[in-house]
Amino acid sequence: MVDYIGVADMQRLVRRIGVASFIERLASEIEADFRRWSLFEKSARLASHSDIGVIELMPTSDGQLYSFKYVNGHPKNTERGLLTVTAFGVLADVATGYPLLLSELTLTTALRTAAMSALAARWLALAGSRTMALIGNGAQSEFQALAFHRMLGIRELRLYDVDATATDKLAHNLAAQPELADLTVLRCASIADAVRGADIVTTVTADKRNAVILTPDMIEPGMHLNAVGGDCPGKTELHRDVLLRPDARVVVEYEPQSRIEGEIQQLPASFPVVEFAQVLRGEATARMSPRDVTIFDSVGFALEDYSALRFLHELLHDGSEAPNRIDLIPTLADPKDLFGGLLGSAGRTTLRRVA
Amino acid sequence: MVDYIGVADMQRLVRRIGVASFIERLASEIEADFRRWSLFEKSARLASHSDIGVIELMPTSDGQLYSFKYVNGHPKNTERGLLTVTAFGVLADVATGYPLLLSELTLTTALRTAAMSALAARWLALAGSRTMALIGNGAQSEFQALAFHRMLGIRELRLYDVDATATDKLAHNLAAQPELADLTVLRCASIADAVRGADIVTTVTADKRNAVILTPDMIEPGMHLNAVGGDCPGKTELHRDVLLRPDARVVVEYEPQSRIEGEIQQLPASFPVVEFAQVLRGEATARMSPRDVTIFDSVGFALEDYSALRFLHELLHDGSEAPNRIDLIPTLADPKDLFGGLLGSAGRTTLRRVA
Repeated sequence: MVDYIGVADMQRLVRRIGVASFIERLASEIEADFRRWSLFEKSARLASHSDIGVIELMPTSDGQLYSFKYVNGHPKNTERGLLTVTAFGVLADVATGYPLLLSELTLTTALRTAAMSALAARWLALAGSRTMALIGNGAQSEFQALAFHRMLGIRELRLYDVDATATDKLAHNLAAQPELADLTVLRCASIADAVRGADIVTTVTADKRNAVILTPDMIEPGMHLNAVGGDCPGKTELHRDVLLRPDARVVVEYEPQSRIEGEIQQLPASFPVVEFAQVLRGEATARMSPRDVTIFDSVGFALEDYSALRFLHELLHDGSEAPNRIDLIPTLADPKDLFGGLLGSAGRTTLRRVA
Repeated sequence: MVDYIGVADMQRLVRRIGVASFIERLASEIEADFRRWSLFEKSARLASHSDIGVIELMPTSDGQLYSFKYVNGHPKNTERGLLTVTAFGVLADVATGYPLLLSELTLTTALRTAAMSALAARWLALAGSRTMALIGNGAQSEFQALAFHRMLGIRELRLYDVDATATDKLAHNLAAQPELADLTVLRCASIADAVRGADIVTTVTADKRNAVILTPDMIEPGMHLNAVGGDCPGKTELHRDVLLRPDARVVVEYEPQSRIEGEIQQLPASFPVVEFAQVLRGEATARMSPRDVTIFDSVGFALEDYSALRFLHELLHDGSEAPNRIDLIPTLADPKDLFGGLLGSAGRTTLRRVA
């Protein structure tokens, strides 16, 4: 039997803890795992591309626990009432190879992406950042807003989306959150309006193309750019000249994967970047001056899902509720007798025909 | 919601159809998919090795359906009452990226491996093969016996395992199968005794090391060797000189993966092999003469699991039973409103604080 967290279980877990608290606790778990960076088996995710989307597998292991996430990205899904991104994942025991937990990760991916964004911003953005532009008001946007309000102290949020109903939806959802009572939410007429004067700019758009959400003229000294939406070959959000500013400091999660999928896919492989784990472990400095523009070129790395699955597995066994379990793996009296244990007749007959 | 086949569901499905019939039907599905070989996205599986085992992800896609399998291999698991190999997998829709089916694949892997072995033997072994040596009498052995009895017409089976209790178990299980009433089962004192005079030799041992189950002196002209157990770097079953016989014809599933994991890992990359799909599609001939020794250097390829998952999904929707379903993926009224749909308050409040 394998522990199971379905969508209903996940809703219950997150509501019990509170969304912002959940994100903040998850960010601590992610930070703890990034500090163990060298222990993890790392690889660029295994992507299966089609004309209209991608399906990816993202495995990692620290030698004790193994995890993988299945995640798709299909921007046109919303036209037929489906989600752009769905995901699920498994945590397994390296010693036995047995899966321990199967969990929904659609909701969890939104939570962990927001946790990672805010964690990176804590290390990269200027202290005292209070204003954030939020470009792209789709499925991920509320999570980003809650994370930056809780973890960075953002108190003014400037919204923009090409789809005005997405902004309506976001504004409605934010207004319904009691803990955001001290958050000013502004609706902006253009990306430039939203970005002007912001301390932090979060881009979380979904189009599978080389979009130009942020152009060089919009960028101001000291800004932190949290570029979430460009996460696939051919799917970027920043004009390349934004990355090429002399004062830009680009931070990635796992360089070999980001060279393929991140904003830096627009640049030669020699373009200098810093891995987040290096910043966290004091091995590198990203922001040299308050006027530097820090860019978190985020694509999402398997370690973040590992942290989420490990955290969920711990929450599931904290004694609050009995975990749901599913019969994904057989339990056999004799492990060498798969056939007899599962398909044999009720009792064994006497031995026949054996020389 | 995602269709779900747990261990109990799989037991019911297989018992409804019968084990040998299930294997034979699955072999037809696998054959049909191998005929479409060029349509599949192929890659060597993604393996995470530890000292005592391996966890692998095996994805593939034909552009319409995507599948992957999670499978571990931990030979020492049986010492603690656990299975050496457990597996599960997912079938997904390439157009939307949505998973369609999550299924147990532990039992299914044994069925599909036997189906693949017998399918390959149909194309490679001498017509009229009636005697098979079965070396390694563990979890996979009954499935191999049933498949070769049904699909090849094997009527004499010669058993050997270093662990006599494994052979006891296999003999018991075979004796309890009414459809094997015409099968003579001999218990042999050594590998050489079992192999002598056999038309087909199936090796399905589990040790994670370079074992030498078959040595050159045991091999007779015309034999077909079904080498199932060597399927991992450092895990082989045949002495390299068996492969190097001038009359040996080595057939693999997917050459780039087999170079890493198959018996041929013992040989230079220039050693000639033929892919099974080429044989099936008439693009290559493996057996040139009745005296050739054909060797199916099987490691298990993602396409076989794709076929199994596609077949299971079809069986699940044949109208016999309502499929079980699990809430692995959210269903939302508004797909852009992940937050509101799953975590929002019951009703939306009126818009506040939006400029």
